[in-house]
Amino acid sequence: MRISQLSAESGVPIPTIKYYLREGLLPQGDQTAATRAEYDQSHLRRLRLIRALLEVGRLPVATIRNVIDAVEDERLSVHDMLGAAHYALSTPVEPHPDDEDWRAARELVDEMVADLGWGVHPLAPARDELTQTVVTLKRLGMPTSREDLLPYATAALDLVREQDITKIPFDGPRDVAVETLVICEVLYGKAFDVLRRLAQESESARILDAAPCPEGESQPPAPE
Amino acid sequence: MRISQLSAESGVPIPTIKYYLREGLLPQGDQTAATRAEYDQSHLRRLRLIRALLEVGRLPVATIRNVIDAVEDERLSVHDMLGAAHYALSTPVEPHPDDEDWRAARELVDEMVADLGWGVHPLAPARDELTQTVVTLKRLGMPTSREDLLPYATAALDLVREQDITKIPFDGPRDVAVETLVICEVLYGKAFDVLRRLAQESESARILDAAPCPEGESQPPAPE
Repeated sequence: MRISQLSAESGVPIPTIKYYLREGLLPQGDQTAATRAEYDQSHLRRLRLIRALLEVGRLPVATIRNVIDAVEDERLSVHDMLGAAHYALSTPVEPHPDDEDWRAARELVDEMVADLGWGVHPLAPARDELTQTVVTLKRLGMPTSREDLLPYATAALDLVREQDITKIPFDGPRDVAVETLVICEVLYGKAFDVLRRLAQESESARILDAAPCPEGESQPPAPE
Repeated sequence: MRISQLSAESGVPIPTIKYYLREGLLPQGDQTAATRAEYDQSHLRRLRLIRALLEVGRLPVATIRNVIDAVEDERLSVHDMLGAAHYALSTPVEPHPDDEDWRAARELVDEMVADLGWGVHPLAPARDELTQTVVTLKRLGMPTSREDLLPYATAALDLVREQDITKIPFDGPRDVAVETLVICEVLYGKAFDVLRRLAQESESARILDAAPCPEGESQPPAPE
């Protein structure tokens, strides 16, 4: 298809598509003439992935480029490629190994991961992210013992094992595996986060015995 | 304490504290002389909350101001105050009620919330956020039936009911309740998100039967 049809089918304006092409986020089309290139379903799918990462995942373009680089780098094994995508999705945090709170929190994180038997790289940036979160929680006076964190860890593992990971086609094309991993991580993660907020509203209403709807509606409007 | 001690105890530079004072994020100190104000533990705690929301929650200053306005608005009931904090934490999304996919997804979200018996306001912005996520997942070809979403909803409710909500002191001072809600929502949410990423790395390593550590280490370094 031509770029105009790619735009129509994806809903992405032509100037935006040209921007993604210049930035290397979208592979060049098949050049059929000096001013004409052909695009296919892979471009459509890539465009949808970029928009999902931008609009729902709210990831910056630089992060999206890292993920797409991992998809396209054929030298990486599937595990390393998935790892690269994972790490690109991490928020970089600066470690503070000279800080006593930091060291204690990092020790807790590493021991918990080891005790759970999780196969996670010692340099995985998520370890620093979790350490920073634990330090901040502790400084705010919130409970951060292993017993406080374990329920979150086991709930996360159950959800990953029973839901997320079952959706990834490990034996299919490598780009589809990464795309699915990223979609699962960002979008089902987003879905879980929103559901958690809905559940918190509901539970705090239940505990406070408040009418959920100040306007006197006790249920959301029935679908028409 | 004076502003210099507030800075030393909180680790927040004086110019940053002055910025928070100007922006109304931090209440003014007790003015004891023309150029001297006294601060107390409540300022220290508020500073830590702001830094946590900024650095770990990565929320924009405008959102942080909304949350703090809700903490300080004594006219709001506890439930409405918590709701305001909740809604301030939502990412605004534009509804597309004319779009067929949007309508179907919104219907699915509303029916699921009703069937779960959750007391959630019909206008809660999280409904639109979840709808947008479902639309995006569907357009990317991912499963989004009620059966696909329910495990995330029940896992979210379990975690909220057994962990998050038990930490909120509903019968204590109203500002502490909101602060704790925000901390739970942002920071334990962050902890869960990172644990989910660690679990995904571990599960994908298990499935691919990959050595978790390319350097030949099979465990993270032992804590010293």
